[in-house]
Amino acid sequence: MNNLYYVIGAGVLAMLYAFWKTGWINSQDEGTDRMKQIGASIADGAMAFLKAEYRVLAIFVVIVACLLAFAANSVGDSWLVSISFLVGALASGLAGFLGMRVATKANNRTTNAAQSSLAKALNVAFTGGSVMGLSVVGLGVLGVTSLYVIYDYLELFNDDSQKLIQAITGFSLGASSIALFARVGGGIYTKAADVGADLVGKVEAGIPEDHPLNPATIADNVGDNVGDVAGMGADLFESYVGAIIGSMVLGWAIFGELAYVTLPLYIAGAGIIVSIIGTFMVSAKEGGSPQKALNIGEFGSSGIMVIVMYFLITYTVETNAMGIFYATLIGLAAGLGIGLITEHYTGTGTKPVKSVVDQSITGSATNIIAGLGVGMQSTFIPVLIIAVAIVFAHQNAGLYGIAMAALGMLANTGIQLAVDAYGPISDNAGGIAEMAGLPPEVRERTDKLDAVGNTTAAIGKGFAIGSAALTTLALFAAFSEIIKSKLGESPFLINISEPIVMAALFIGAMLPFLFSSLAMGAVGRAAMAMIEEVRRQFREIPELKAALEVLGKGDESSWSDEDKSIYEAGLTKADHGRCIEISTQSAIKEMLLPGLLAVVTPILIGLLGNLVNMGPQALGGLLAGVTVSGVAMAIFQSNAGGAWDNAKKMIEEGIEINGEKYGKGSDVHKAAVVGDTVGDPFKDTSGPSLNILIKLMSVVSLVMAPFLF
Amino acid sequence: MNNLYYVIGAGVLAMLYAFWKTGWINSQDEGTDRMKQIGASIADGAMAFLKAEYRVLAIFVVIVACLLAFAANSVGDSWLVSISFLVGALASGLAGFLGMRVATKANNRTTNAAQSSLAKALNVAFTGGSVMGLSVVGLGVLGVTSLYVIYDYLELFNDDSQKLIQAITGFSLGASSIALFARVGGGIYTKAADVGADLVGKVEAGIPEDHPLNPATIADNVGDNVGDVAGMGADLFESYVGAIIGSMVLGWAIFGELAYVTLPLYIAGAGIIVSIIGTFMVSAKEGGSPQKALNIGEFGSSGIMVIVMYFLITYTVETNAMGIFYATLIGLAAGLGIGLITEHYTGTGTKPVKSVVDQSITGSATNIIAGLGVGMQSTFIPVLIIAVAIVFAHQNAGLYGIAMAALGMLANTGIQLAVDAYGPISDNAGGIAEMAGLPPEVRERTDKLDAVGNTTAAIGKGFAIGSAALTTLALFAAFSEIIKSKLGESPFLINISEPIVMAALFIGAMLPFLFSSLAMGAVGRAAMAMIEEVRRQFREIPELKAALEVLGKGDESSWSDEDKSIYEAGLTKADHGRCIEISTQSAIKEMLLPGLLAVVTPILIGLLGNLVNMGPQALGGLLAGVTVSGVAMAIFQSNAGGAWDNAKKMIEEGIEINGEKYGKGSDVHKAAVVGDTVGDPFKDTSGPSLNILIKLMSVVSLVMAPFLF
Repeated sequence: MNNLYYVIGAGVLAMLYAFWKTGWINSQDEGTDRMKQIGASIADGAMAFLKAEYRVLAIFVVIVACLLAFAANSVGDSWLVSISFLVGALASGLAGFLGMRVATKANNRTTNAAQSSLAKALNVAFTGGSVMGLSVVGLGVLGVTSLYVIYDYLELFNDDSQKLIQAITGFSLGASSIALFARVGGGIYTKAADVGADLVGKVEAGIPEDHPLNPATIADNVGDNVGDVAGMGADLFESYVGAIIGSMVLGWAIFGELAYVTLPLYIAGAGIIVSIIGTFMVSAKEGGSPQKALNIGEFGSSGIMVIVMYFLITYTVETNAMGIFYATLIGLAAGLGIGLITEHYTGTGTKPVKSVVDQSITGSATNIIAGLGVGMQSTFIPVLIIAVAIVFAHQNAGLYGIAMAALGMLANTGIQLAVDAYGPISDNAGGIAEMAGLPPEVRERTDKLDAVGNTTAAIGKGFAIGSAALTTLALFAAFSEIIKSKLGESPFLINISEPIVMAALFIGAMLPFLFSSLAMGAVGRAAMAMIEEVRRQFREIPELKAALEVLGKGDESSWSDEDKSIYEAGLTKADHGRCIEISTQSAIKEMLLPGLLAVVTPILIGLLGNLVNMGPQALGGLLAGVTVSGVAMAIFQSNAGGAWDNAKKMIEEGIEINGEKYGKGSDVHKAAVVGDTVGDPFKDTSGPSLNILIKLMSVVSLVMAPFLF
Repeated sequence: MNNLYYVIGAGVLAMLYAFWKTGWINSQDEGTDRMKQIGASIADGAMAFLKAEYRVLAIFVVIVACLLAFAANSVGDSWLVSISFLVGALASGLAGFLGMRVATKANNRTTNAAQSSLAKALNVAFTGGSVMGLSVVGLGVLGVTSLYVIYDYLELFNDDSQKLIQAITGFSLGASSIALFARVGGGIYTKAADVGADLVGKVEAGIPEDHPLNPATIADNVGDNVGDVAGMGADLFESYVGAIIGSMVLGWAIFGELAYVTLPLYIAGAGIIVSIIGTFMVSAKEGGSPQKALNIGEFGSSGIMVIVMYFLITYTVETNAMGIFYATLIGLAAGLGIGLITEHYTGTGTKPVKSVVDQSITGSATNIIAGLGVGMQSTFIPVLIIAVAIVFAHQNAGLYGIAMAALGMLANTGIQLAVDAYGPISDNAGGIAEMAGLPPEVRERTDKLDAVGNTTAAIGKGFAIGSAALTTLALFAAFSEIIKSKLGESPFLINISEPIVMAALFIGAMLPFLFSSLAMGAVGRAAMAMIEEVRRQFREIPELKAALEVLGKGDESSWSDEDKSIYEAGLTKADHGRCIEISTQSAIKEMLLPGLLAVVTPILIGLLGNLVNMGPQALGGLLAGVTVSGVAMAIFQSNAGGAWDNAKKMIEEGIEINGEKYGKGSDVHKAAVVGDTVGDPFKDTSGPSLNILIKLMSVVSLVMAPFLF
């Protein structure tokens, strides 16, 4: 038990690191007044969204906590599960808040650093990301371990370890609930703003991306933060916590020894230290390759982690230590493999992306068909990898091995997430450079930073999907074990040949389709509201209208002095605040239905199944269905979106097909823009939300299992 | 046993009816020389494709038959299974041949009839379709029943009914194999021609649909026949035979009484008679509503069928006759329900389709997003219906009930398919009217006919998907029962908690994505070849080029006499034959990989599972995964395609949004055309092929079960 204090120490260390780096970011120069102003608008907008979101979630969390306490009480279980739930929700919310606050501060500071050098800008952007990464793992480890230690110390469960661990599962539910709404709400926000800004600004009014005359640009930049930074953070927080708690439940249920329960905590704690070491390995010298810098940090820390895990596992457990170690290696390898495949299907210049480029020549229809085809095809190898990982991890260490494989993938989430969050920060820095009218080489530097992160981001996505699948299975296995222990001697079988199970499997497999359609419909409605607002501003604000007309005259050198003053006068007239408000309100309103669907469905199916005494079996079928179809749908949508995005970027850089050249503004480019617009909600809203959907439904089942059956 | 001769009699009657109606179609007037010529080109093209396809399939069939005989022999089973397989393949091929031959003849005869009246045209088109319908059910019933009677009469199985029935399952495999290739090959053919004709003809050269100057038009019309008529026929032939044979296997395995084995044959035989009666109920008086005529035929015969089934079931079986009867009713209601939902999501003027229309205003990207959303959302209720049907059919009559529900849906396939095939015949008739330069009222009449069939066609699609799901489950249940009987006392459980089963479930759920991507990739490549050929002809054939230029001048009244003669000269110069060849070759080449995937995967997974003594379990997981995800994907793709199609049609008829009017040629229309083009391979190639994929994989498992495990 004493060793757990070291784990708590690691959690505290992560938080200290995060605060230290936050201070460092704050001390960096923000640049010109214009940059300060833009930065402040983005930061304010992001915080306004978070506030509005948390206000709604607070109600949800309190209601669920009460229901949980009531349900637990009514079956004689401990109401502490609802305390765990509250702590989990708080920790997830806090991680999102801390990470996003620093990310919005890092944006314009990265832009400013990019005025002097690439290396400095990399440093600021990566440091900003590392705060998110360490906050997530720090709060995750602190939360779970502290609950465990406190419950144990206060002897609240009279040494009944199973009940204690069961009460801790509430933490995972809390984290998952917040994650779902953060991912879905953030995804809707970012795409509504993005589509709105693009369709009216770029296409209708013909002004460049991120131009200050476009009222939706600030909302668009806010969206990158709430969607890509906070959303991704919440997603990985959920996986991370789910993998830890899933392993703990299985460790006790299978081995009945505390060593197997604490092992996941040790690994997570060690992962924090390794992640911090990894962040120090990331530093590009002037003229050095930023890609190399990130790679050294990420792969270097993975290598160290493997060695650390070997010693930790062999030191902690006696039975089958090597099998468990191999399981973590299988998980790590699977994550890496899925990442590389993701890069193959979505990376600039790869064969699949080139095929999308080629099909753009005959128009947007063939571009769309090609992208859909690439996305669907890209499910093949990742799913095979997951299937093989399941079988081999199980062969090495049973169900516990599957949970350990998930944990192996997620052990250095700290640095992984730092690299993930670095991308949107660089992206935003570029936007600010554009809006603040900085010289083009600044934008070039930030674009380079952004591009550099792409491979690592693809690998990150692979880890996110792979870990979601394995974490779900770990939670699913934990659910099964809890049901088994309830049933006592009789075996718990989820037999597909049972019609109830098959029916539930059908419904489960359909849910990702329904959920995606809700998410896409929400984006469509929110984008429509945004489009109307931008059009209204262009129509009703005279200075803006006049400035747009000047911009339409073409090259700045041809403008008269009067033109210039009209243009200058228009620059500050766009009402960004109203657009931010619209995105915020739409996102909050639209996230509720898909969110509730995810929470309510497993409970409903379980209760319906109970009518014929098949509740757990029906629920098992539902979970299996939603997981297998959800993983395929998530990969399909994410990768189709990625392929369209990079196909568009390739054409923007200029391509040559059959001797003809095509670039920005060509018909081929226009076709590719359509594909990219379709891909946006795919890859940033519905696709990643499915990761959460599958985990959340499993964790709901896991927490509810003792009450319902 | 004697009663089975009546069933054979019904099968013979169906064939006599088909030949009689074929003769009647032949005796109808073909119209002008130009119409004769066009009709002949389409008929020749369709036959050329069928010949080329059957040549390839013959090799496949012979190889599989040998392997089957060898495998059966090696485990001491009867090699007669391979005879059944051959007969099944032949019957399916013959049904396709007969149905398509008459459909291609009915095309221009319908056009000609439409010159005088709507009612006459309806009569010709429906009669053409009814030949397809009755050929399918006739050959299906004749094939299965004759094999059963002959095997029994010759005492080839020494009164071992289980072995006899097992040998008959080969018939289903034969039918499924042909169906797969017919659906996939036909789907690729029709969409390659369609996309090619549209993109170069309509979009690039700006000539109307079905214009004789477009070299791909004949291929496009051939495609409608090979895809929509022969493909749909093969699909329903497979479901029909699968449901019958699945029920037979389950009837013996569960009840051990021949009454339950022959009951499905009686129902199928009675269904033939009822279908024939139904066709006589379809007749529109001049001025009457054709929709009403079709409805009377379809719903009238369904009503009769319910009564007939009640008496048949209660007369034939003793135990639980009412339960079985209710199961068939549940199946019928489920099919109808799914059909109505399909109509709701894809019908002209419905709310979902209107939403796609509305989103077309902001361009093709939002049109695509809306269509994808509608398609995904449309999976919700049909899957719920299927789930409920499974549970209730099972509650009423066990696993046998699930098979009977499928049969209940399919009992009057004869008339169902007649209505389905009537659609493409009317569609083609319209194309011929255009190409032959007939007066516009002819095209209007055929368009009306085509539109009239839409609701019934939607219901038909619902039946196709619903019956595919239930038939698959029946086959799956039959597979389980066979494994059970092999295992003897020990129970056969496909437990999701087993990692091998879960891994197989993952792979199964991924297959529809991979399969769809292969199908769409094939369409893309084939369309590209077609596009290049059409462009080449426009470039290299001088008379064609000159005529196109004349056409580009606009209204015919403004042409000079010279223009007119140039135009006339060009009309016959397009090389339709070359386009037909390209479509044929591409389709044949491209159908092989997806086809083999479907056949080989279950065998491979079964063998891999055998390595750890879990072959049947792994296979069970695979089948469950592919079924639940395949059904959702099939509904998603079919309905998204249908919604895009009708959204485009609505805009073509003229719509008004926010006070502005949009019609053909507007930007809104162009956006909708993109959606329709994306939807084409969805709804006509990959979507419907999934119906076959899931059935085929189940039937492969069923037939292989005794050899592999």
